[in-house]
Amino acid sequence: MKNKLFFLLFILSSCSMRAQITDPVATEVWSPEPRVVTPGAGTAVPSDAIVLFDGSNLNEWMSVQDSSAARWNVEGGAMTVNTDAGDIMTKRVFGDCQLHVEFSEPEVVVGEGQNRGNSGIFLQNRYEVQVLDCYQNRTYSNGQTASIYKQSIPLVNACRPPGQWQYYDIIYTAPRFNTDGIKVRPGFVTVLHNGVLVQNHTEIKGTTEYIGLPQNKAHGKGAIKLQDHDCLVKYRNIWIREL
Amino acid sequence: MKNKLFFLLFILSSCSMRAQITDPVATEVWSPEPRVVTPGAGTAVPSDAIVLFDGSNLNEWMSVQDSSAARWNVEGGAMTVNTDAGDIMTKRVFGDCQLHVEFSEPEVVVGEGQNRGNSGIFLQNRYEVQVLDCYQNRTYSNGQTASIYKQSIPLVNACRPPGQWQYYDIIYTAPRFNTDGIKVRPGFVTVLHNGVLVQNHTEIKGTTEYIGLPQNKAHGKGAIKLQDHDCLVKYRNIWIREL
Amino acid sequence: MKNKLFFLLFILSSCSMRAQITDPVATEVWSPEPRVVTPGAGTAVPSDAIVLFDGSNLNEWMSVQDSSAARWNVEGGAMTVNTDAGDIMTKRVFGDCQLHVEFSEPEVVVGEGQNRGNSGIFLQNRYEVQVLDCYQNRTYSNGQTASIYKQSIPLVNACRPPGQWQYYDIIYTAPRFNTDGIKVRPGFVTVLHNGVLVQNHTEIKGTTEYIGLPQNKAHGKGAIKLQDHDCLVKYRNIWIREL
Amino acid sequence: MKNKLFFLLFILSSCSMRAQITDPVATEVWSPEPRVVTPGAGTAVPSDAIVLFDGSNLNEWMSVQDSSAARWNVEGGAMTVNTDAGDIMTKRVFGDCQLHVEFSEPEVVVGEGQNRGNSGIFLQNRYEVQVLDCYQNRTYSNGQTASIYKQSIPLVNACRPPGQWQYYDIIYTAPRFNTDGIKVRPGFVTVLHNGVLVQNHTEIKGTTEYIGLPQNKAHGKGAIKLQDHDCLVKYRNIWIREL
Repeated sequence: MKNKLFFLLFILSSCSMRAQITDPVATEVWSPEPRVVTPGAGTAVPSDAIVLFDGSNLNEWMSVQDSSAARWNVEGGAMTVNTDAGDIMTKRVFGDCQLHVEFSEPEVVVGEGQNRGNSGIFLQNRYEVQVLDCYQNRTYSNGQTASIYKQSIPLVNACRPPGQWQYYDIIYTAPRFNTDGIKVRPGFVTVLHNGVLVQNHTEIKGTTEYIGLPQNKAHGKGAIKLQDHDCLVKYRNIWIREL
Repeated sequence: MKNKLFFLLFILSSCSMRAQITDPVATEVWSPEPRVVTPGAGTAVPSDAIVLFDGSNLNEWMSVQDSSAARWNVEGGAMTVNTDAGDIMTKRVFGDCQLHVEFSEPEVVVGEGQNRGNSGIFLQNRYEVQVLDCYQNRTYSNGQTASIYKQSIPLVNACRPPGQWQYYDIIYTAPRFNTDGIKVRPGFVTVLHNGVLVQNHTEIKGTTEYIGLPQNKAHGKGAIKLQDHDCLVKYRNIWIREL
Repeated sequence: MKNKLFFLLFILSSCSMRAQITDPVATEVWSPEPRVVTPGAGTAVPSDAIVLFDGSNLNEWMSVQDSSAARWNVEGGAMTVNTDAGDIMTKRVFGDCQLHVEFSEPEVVVGEGQNRGNSGIFLQNRYEVQVLDCYQNRTYSNGQTASIYKQSIPLVNACRPPGQWQYYDIIYTAPRFNTDGIKVRPGFVTVLHNGVLVQNHTEIKGTTEYIGLPQNKAHGKGAIKLQDHDCLVKYRNIWIREL
Repeated sequence: MKNKLFFLLFILSSCSMRAQITDPVATEVWSPEPRVVTPGAGTAVPSDAIVLFDGSNLNEWMSVQDSSAARWNVEGGAMTVNTDAGDIMTKRVFGDCQLHVEFSEPEVVVGEGQNRGNSGIFLQNRYEVQVLDCYQNRTYSNGQTASIYKQSIPLVNACRPPGQWQYYDIIYTAPRFNTDGIKVRPGFVTVLHNGVLVQNHTEIKGTTEYIGLPQNKAHGKGAIKLQDHDCLVKYRNIWIREL
């Protein structure tokens, strides 16, 4: 009996004197519960992804010039730039997102520098992640493959040879503007090129201009745009997850 | 003569009045030139990666307990936790890095919650990215697969069924401490789980404690640690790139 | 004539061959034009600030308990905590903001540690910047003056002696939650205490709990709350600018 | 006896089932203890600040051109730009810092746009926080008072009239470069102008060029530089705290 009482006192005192968290349960957080996403495997995409191109048609895309049907060439599970058709863009618009894109540079190498396999992926129709064949092809660093075009040099050059499939995994956070039209939170982008980190939470300075400086006009959601830069770049397996 | 003079004046005035950059060359940056990294393909790793485990041996690892040789079981190109051997850690130490790890949860499901396929990957020997079998297995959100353990809930649950190979791509920026020992720049981590974004530039709050709160004692580089949590988790194809 | 022609050719060639921006006008950005704010001086506040307390009345405040009129004591241009009245909060709600608050600790020192001059300023009714008399008064580091309460230790202790007026300049960026209720962008806070940097773009981990861990339930705009912690802390000259 | 046993069991079970931290002591962090800094008051500066100019002499400064003694004019507790002497810079070099600078624009207004009261404060000898008289004086937005020169438009225009003393409180985090010479973590700057937030954790894009684009060549610590832009701008009360 006496022993039990001592034990009881011990329990009580150990509870009240404790200066440290002693129960691992105390630091558990049960809510919210992340929803389930079945990840991709092989050609399957994550279950919450919007498939923008699965190799069969361009139903998610339209011509930038006149919003007519996109007229790039679909064949063999890939689309190829149609240099008569101009840029294409998604019909849907997006903000923060994870974007997966596969591309292949023309096997027959034509041109040098910016003229070799040039295309591009535009986030919110404004911010270009450069697509280019920089395999043994030097150009300006802030315009090479996986650069944020004319803004941010990639950490490394992770290009595969022309003709091989390559991919980008892009994590994008859109900029935010206040009611004065001033950018109060910049956009950020992380890019893995063929699985190699090339942009690490890089701030987007504004639009990615060929001539002149980044612009920072307030905007809302925007389309994903693919560029026709007169090169026969191929794309396949494009999907996006809204974050 | 007069015409030529007018033309000259036109040129001069057009130069001085120009308010826009007109030459695309003006916004090119040629230096530094990113170094070339041959990306991985199949089982090949990026050319600048340090291979921490290629399936053949544990030469890069040691026992956490006594720095002796790591005694996990290597077989069939994978290592399996040896529940008699305790945690293992790399002999090398790292700061900012990109880390790729593949893991497989035990095909024979044993236990529930935190007891099902528990292990973990510790960055700088302190900050755990949780490894757990959360395929149809509920536990606390901040302790499930791909959580920063007891700190940050993953954005989604992207688990594959037990027995299948899964992977993490981890982008890690180490915290920084001033000479007073106060953390002046936090660590950050981005995690893709089976290709799905689960941690997006998440701030690391401190050490990832089972009991109690994150600690923030100043430190330098640290090892990658793999946890023996009494579950027969398998690992393979582990590589790291220093950033 | 010949000289003029050479000069003309020189102008033309210098324009076309230029690889650098040569005109400073090219990098000017004229839009948007920041609006004019007349800064404060003496007791005047910035012209776009909302005055939350100018020393005369508590019209901008209400009781937290029952939304009735705030019953703290207004005298001599300051308000003093009424320990019978409980916390008070603004009638308006805010998101991102710059907040200026002046406070004075009781001249007659009573108590130790957390019991000496305790109060607090809550951003969005959830995130406390601690107010305490830590002049020669030791308490836990993550609970001392200018801590983000139980989250983030201030860089230094910049307290003035009790009875003197002190101030905080707080720059606050609110967290953002996705439709799953998961925090996708944390809140941040910068604090200057008596003009000394004490929190430098510190991530807010969640609510600042006395007992237990930070919570991260999704929320919108929220009031500024001042805490009644049974200490006769005075406040004056409180204003806020929406960012 | 039976009652006591039940009570004992109740205590035991309540301990083991407890899912919450119940003891506020559990979330206290006592280490590290922030060091004490006596804040400034009136003309006194924070006790850990390095005084760069207290009104009496230019001992902390040298000529940028030839490292000779700084030859700006010291009178009445202020220094005035000597337009025959060129820029001046601190003898010491700095990284992350909090910098306080007071300045006064010429009371006799001369010139327009960039020609009115132009000077500048360069962080690490490279990154200019613009000093200009933009009181009722329009210039390009990314070159006006408190801009990061030709990079970042201030949130608002908080200028005081010429002849009045104004001040900047600057919080600066230096960029970081990897061994490849690539910037892996950008610099950031927060600026309060006359107490009004004008730059909020703004990323620094590179050097702040008059002509051309920001450059991002790797560098270490650097001096604080004050610009002679042919305008009789005055400075006083300059101090810096290393972070």
